[in-house]
Amino acid sequence: MDDEMALEHFLSSFAAIPFPKILVHGGGKLATRVAEAMGIQQQMIEGRRITDAETLKIVTMVYAGFINKNIISKLQSKQNNSVGITGADGNAILAHKRISKTDYGFVGDVDWVNTAFFHQLLDNGYVPVVAPITHNGEGQLLNTNADTMAQSIATALSKQYAVTLIYSFEKSGVLLDVQDESSCIAVLTPDYYQSLKEKQLIFAGMIPKLDNAFAAIHAGVAKVIIGNAAALPKLMEGKTGTTIQYG
Amino acid sequence: MDDEMALEHFLSSFAAIPFPKILVHGGGKLATRVAEAMGIQQQMIEGRRITDAETLKIVTMVYAGFINKNIISKLQSKQNNSVGITGADGNAILAHKRISKTDYGFVGDVDWVNTAFFHQLLDNGYVPVVAPITHNGEGQLLNTNADTMAQSIATALSKQYAVTLIYSFEKSGVLLDVQDESSCIAVLTPDYYQSLKEKQLIFAGMIPKLDNAFAAIHAGVAKVIIGNAAALPKLMEGKTGTTIQYG
Repeated sequence: MDDEMALEHFLSSFAAIPFPKILVHGGGKLATRVAEAMGIQQQMIEGRRITDAETLKIVTMVYAGFINKNIISKLQSKQNNSVGITGADGNAILAHKRISKTDYGFVGDVDWVNTAFFHQLLDNGYVPVVAPITHNGEGQLLNTNADTMAQSIATALSKQYAVTLIYSFEKSGVLLDVQDESSCIAVLTPDYYQSLKEKQLIFAGMIPKLDNAFAAIHAGVAKVIIGNAAALPKLMEGKTGTTIQYG
Repeated sequence: MDDEMALEHFLSSFAAIPFPKILVHGGGKLATRVAEAMGIQQQMIEGRRITDAETLKIVTMVYAGFINKNIISKLQSKQNNSVGITGADGNAILAHKRISKTDYGFVGDVDWVNTAFFHQLLDNGYVPVVAPITHNGEGQLLNTNADTMAQSIATALSKQYAVTLIYSFEKSGVLLDVQDESSCIAVLTPDYYQSLKEKQLIFAGMIPKLDNAFAAIHAGVAKVIIGNAAALPKLMEGKTGTTIQYG
């Protein structure tokens, strides 16, 4: 999201994937830059950003506004008739404000995915593009982790579709050595993941993504692959990246 | 859009209107405030704001992000299953960059309304909520006047529906004396409008809105009413505000 050229390249690959498909995006560093430009202090607790009212305003502007609509206009120019949504649109994804000892502010944990709404869009040939914002059904928007949203949507749709869930980011996959792109693990099973975690060989930042990936596989998603956004076509074919395998 | 309480009241009235219905919103003064907070200079030519690249970014964030998604989450809490869109989503509204001696920047003039997309949403029971941003089909978003968008959508849908187009704002209607809310004209015909313009009795800011209103009536929209957003139910019944009448 932070590199215009890379985004353009990614969207061209994405546009070439056959229908039906859904894109769930994050926000990159733009939200932080907008907050800085507006002089809004980011509150952190234990290294995690707190979504206070001002931060929610910014992530809603940046994720659902700027990033989402730029993706939509670019996909339209590539003959992908896309519709940009948050969890509030079409009541697509209901969440509740996170219940936790630490008050993370307006952060949402997903309760329910409106599969009927996604089916309607997909069946009519639209490409849903989802910004990581949900709502609680009572008028409150909530900032929600994009990886978790992707997992929730993939899981919900796996009841009717054979879903391939691809987590694409800037690394070539799950790396044994975070400094070495060639150390990518081809296949990761729960046992192997467990042993790598015990040896502290999994980069801490990867753990939430991998927990989501295994949750998806456990819940019935046919295929989960993690890899470099620049290699999307190869990821689709399982020729690169890390494939998450159930057992 | 600038008054939280007034917006809440308006959305409650709007939510109570029977389906099918569409809401087209503007941006109020929030875009200007965000631009100021970010230290972005607004360029003006002859009193009109120029939409340069930075301004386009801000209006996309504010209109399609913050305002649109707040309206959606509020309407969801009022049992209106709404979907927030720009002209880019679902290829809803195609526009071109304004051709003019003065370069207004990324300002779009509407070419085409995708009635099939609106019908699909309406027929499935969704309430489309439209932010005043369009696209050119070639990957460029464009800032577009909300009044014109409302007129274009109303006109396009009038081929299949008997459309009532309501322009709601902070005045009680078209006023003979802009200082006197009780001077509201009940019925405005093209001849009366012409004579008032000649006598310079129409407030300059009203002229684009009224030109849009007459364009809609001429193009087949069944009813056009201009009035106070706070009086939406009465406007719907034609009991207050200014009714635009063809001949």
